[in-house]
Amino acid sequence: MTTRLLTKEQVRGLIRMPDVIAAVEDAFRAFSDGAVEQPPYMGLHLSQPGAEIDFKACYHAGAERVSLKASSGGFRDNPSRVGLPNGMGTVLLFDGLSGALLCAMDGSLLTGFRTGAAGAVSVRALAREDARVVAMIGTGNQARMQIRAIREVMQIDRIHAWGRSSAGLAGFKVDIETEFGLPVIPADSAQDAVAEADIVVTTTRASGVVLRAGWLRPGTHVVAIGADQKGKQELDPEIFRHARIIVDSRAQCVEKGEAQHALRAGIVADVHAEIGEVLLGRTAGRQSRDEITIFDSTGMAIQDTTTAALILQRAQDRGIGAHFDFLGQES
Amino acid sequence: MTTRLLTKEQVRGLIRMPDVIAAVEDAFRAFSDGAVEQPPYMGLHLSQPGAEIDFKACYHAGAERVSLKASSGGFRDNPSRVGLPNGMGTVLLFDGLSGALLCAMDGSLLTGFRTGAAGAVSVRALAREDARVVAMIGTGNQARMQIRAIREVMQIDRIHAWGRSSAGLAGFKVDIETEFGLPVIPADSAQDAVAEADIVVTTTRASGVVLRAGWLRPGTHVVAIGADQKGKQELDPEIFRHARIIVDSRAQCVEKGEAQHALRAGIVADVHAEIGEVLLGRTAGRQSRDEITIFDSTGMAIQDTTTAALILQRAQDRGIGAHFDFLGQES
Repeated sequence: MTTRLLTKEQVRGLIRMPDVIAAVEDAFRAFSDGAVEQPPYMGLHLSQPGAEIDFKACYHAGAERVSLKASSGGFRDNPSRVGLPNGMGTVLLFDGLSGALLCAMDGSLLTGFRTGAAGAVSVRALAREDARVVAMIGTGNQARMQIRAIREVMQIDRIHAWGRSSAGLAGFKVDIETEFGLPVIPADSAQDAVAEADIVVTTTRASGVVLRAGWLRPGTHVVAIGADQKGKQELDPEIFRHARIIVDSRAQCVEKGEAQHALRAGIVADVHAEIGEVLLGRTAGRQSRDEITIFDSTGMAIQDTTTAALILQRAQDRGIGAHFDFLGQES
Repeated sequence: MTTRLLTKEQVRGLIRMPDVIAAVEDAFRAFSDGAVEQPPYMGLHLSQPGAEIDFKACYHAGAERVSLKASSGGFRDNPSRVGLPNGMGTVLLFDGLSGALLCAMDGSLLTGFRTGAAGAVSVRALAREDARVVAMIGTGNQARMQIRAIREVMQIDRIHAWGRSSAGLAGFKVDIETEFGLPVIPADSAQDAVAEADIVVTTTRASGVVLRAGWLRPGTHVVAIGADQKGKQELDPEIFRHARIIVDSRAQCVEKGEAQHALRAGIVADVHAEIGEVLLGRTAGRQSRDEITIFDSTGMAIQDTTTAALILQRAQDRGIGAHFDFLGQES
């Protein structure tokens, strides 16, 4: 029994957004079907201010795969001190039928891809079919990943973008226009950015309202990515009052997703459904052309499991990676 | 930055019980000194009855090391179906100052060694100095590991052993006499085994009383290894009434250690101390020659951290292991 080892560059060569979108759909369906075991994650706060290592595990019973993702972040001195990124990741993938360690892969790229894919899954499931205009609030790495993913599931005519940093906004415009050939129109404000949008994606680190209820057009689909911890917030809770609220995980979103604020304020009594329930056909998604839909994404370990399993499958098919026999006599 | 990879056989060549005893003492001191972060572990129950994978993480702030141990068990069909053990282990060791993955090593041997070492640490800290006779209740792998460890910290004249299986008992006698040259005297009962003992070690999987209070001689030191889950039990709770009760972790032992039963029965109101507090000199260990002392061991992730760090240090010193650069361009 050997364990396959994959570097970051090998993962980069194996990971393809259309496949990840399919893997994340599988993840959402399995989760809402009760075929997933996801214990609370383990988070360690290290001695350097802001530095942490988190461990997230998940069992996908249908696929008989177990993943463990180690993610570090906040090591601000790494680039200058040791020439390493300020955060790194490693994913272990185990066979659920034997417990064997099938693969250890670099995890730097996986989280960004599967989070981007989640947005695209929600667009395909919840946005109006004639949606063409995207507003991007926030201009960092995940904003780029959202565009990379959403363009796989809809025809984007143009992107209105806004971010707090004008340099960040200019860089986003150059990158998106170069990589995807999609026109980016810098906006003067978040309100300006969303004025003509069919899809609004929020990817900031904000802990307060970035998007007001009155600014959105009827029929908009909102992809709320940024809020994934207690206290983090991007949306005016009033947006939730008449919207259809779809979440990745009900348990997570009521506690630390964007929905936490609308629930605490008593604006809504509950979320409507998990996206997995929509994908399984157990509940309706969008109910009318004019309805505002919200996808509240907090991120789940099952997305890591199915995405890592996909990467391993492609590595096996293409013979990519090194092998190491942890139980063998020789290394 | 490369990650060192170590096979089971390489770990076997690097791990030495005297070093592990020192590493576990360091672990206990660091834990009771508040220099350790150990979140609740993540346990996954898989589809095969009894099969599970657990993940235990720990941060040792003093040493700036983070460990993650993946342990599988209960895959009964593995030997016949896929030629693998019914349980396996992998340990990841990270640098707490950068988050870098320093080492991935096979973890099959580590838990047995660090658990054995815990018993020896308690014998050195709590047993009478003139203790010479050991009683071993249970005759499995951990019973062997306890003898391997305890012989490093005391002169064992003889071992009285008892187990439910007479074949297991006979095998234990042969193994211990062959490996360590120590005489093993099979006992007809647990009572018979402990009648002349200075040290009593319990390593069974029992969920009920194996050892009665009236059987123990004054001045005995009891090493209680078996009970590490709710419901598991080896000792008559009455043993606790007049004994000095030292635990590895107060929080763990009151919930799932041997102490849980004596506390629930109201026989004692609290445990006396953690062994780390004794090792730090913050509280006394044994108070008199005649006192019965109990070490209640449930096992802690920090023992994995310090033991894995020791193995890595020796591998670095001796140039053992393969290297893999997860962030590099080539594998």
